[in-house]
Amino acid sequence: MAKIAFELLTLENEVLRAYLFWSAILVLKMLFMSLLTGLMRFRTQTFANPEDLLDKRLKVKFDNSDVERVRRAHRNDLENILPFFAIGFLYVLIDPAPGLAINLFRAVGIARIIHTIVYAVVVMPQPSRALAFFVALGATVYMAVQVLLAAL
Amino acid sequence: MAKIAFELLTLENEVLRAYLFWSAILVLKMLFMSLLTGLMRFRTQTFANPEDLLDKRLKVKFDNSDVERVRRAHRNDLENILPFFAIGFLYVLIDPAPGLAINLFRAVGIARIIHTIVYAVVVMPQPSRALAFFVALGATVYMAVQVLLAAL
Amino acid sequence: MAKIAFELLTLENEVLRAYLFWSAILVLKMLFMSLLTGLMRFRTQTFANPEDLLDKRLKVKFDNSDVERVRRAHRNDLENILPFFAIGFLYVLIDPAPGLAINLFRAVGIARIIHTIVYAVVVMPQPSRALAFFVALGATVYMAVQVLLAAL
Repeated sequence: MAKIAFELLTLENEVLRAYLFWSAILVLKMLFMSLLTGLMRFRTQTFANPEDLLDKRLKVKFDNSDVERVRRAHRNDLENILPFFAIGFLYVLIDPAPGLAINLFRAVGIARIIHTIVYAVVVMPQPSRALAFFVALGATVYMAVQVLLAAL
Repeated sequence: MAKIAFELLTLENEVLRAYLFWSAILVLKMLFMSLLTGLMRFRTQTFANPEDLLDKRLKVKFDNSDVERVRRAHRNDLENILPFFAIGFLYVLIDPAPGLAINLFRAVGIARIIHTIVYAVVVMPQPSRALAFFVALGATVYMAVQVLLAAL
Repeated sequence: MAKIAFELLTLENEVLRAYLFWSAILVLKMLFMSLLTGLMRFRTQTFANPEDLLDKRLKVKFDNSDVERVRRAHRNDLENILPFFAIGFLYVLIDPAPGLAINLFRAVGIARIIHTIVYAVVVMPQPSRALAFFVALGATVYMAVQVLLAAL
């Protein structure tokens, strides 16, 4: 850790700035999934709670394939983007080479946006989703290994 | 970023203190959901794993509506509170106006507690849950946009 | 907060180092769950999306018990490890007694690894999973309460 914390945790540090940028983008992207789920629920009239039924002739339903697809994409975000938020910040703290770090954040950000699009917006044949998934996973694993090595 | 990191990340900073307070409250609230799920599982004898069956005459079950309601509320926490933990901390780092920041953290904290109550403890008619959901979502989106703008 | 932030957030701080170590381990452990789910999906030919079907005679399936077991273990990670990432870092910021803090991080890390093994790798009778779950939960609750008290 060549720099000390108060140099790392300022907006003068371009690595922190890239982390802030992509984290904010991915938080917005994740929260958008909730709205997309809501939209799909209204469009297909698929509601999971009795109190959500607008029309008393409706019944609760859990198995609409469009709703479930968005929910699977959203869950995949929870499994992959949330650990990135944690490890990405710790990676900033170990003062990585800026060019590499910025490109890793960019890779995770772009790959996860593509993942959402090909999974839940315009369904695309494999291996498009698998590729997007593994790019983000690979970058996150790399950061975790670097953090681990720095902590030994 | 008027202040530098070592002024922001101390307990003298009332914005950090508010973030610590509401984050700790919401972590405890989320962990409580696991206990509530467990309670519902015992009360309704609904267990998802063969090794959890206390009585050998029981079978695994997945469709109890009380258990599933708590699990939906818990998943909604994962989707909304966990991104708040990430973006709320980054929002502290961009040195926001204290009064606004403290009220945003308070809004998220109180709204998410109400969300849990009306969803999974004392079920209330809509739009109570929707209102609680959108207050917390709106505050989180606002913070994410501010972080994004600061990082440009 | 006896120390100030730039002393806490350096690798000279053994508490931060322990937090980095166990967070990195647990990120890798969580990401491994995705691969384990994928492995189980291929082994049992259980795919949730039409575009994932390699053989056109297959149909989407959602109810394979081996796949669902890994998914339940993974969801339990989301519910417990992700809040730990947030509160563990805030606990570092309140400058806890190093010996205690390091052992709490170790307890969470080891307990959650055991939780995964007995839940999804080599299924073990209860109360092995319950014990692992409550050790990690107890340590996380303790940290959250300490953060809460420091913020008052």
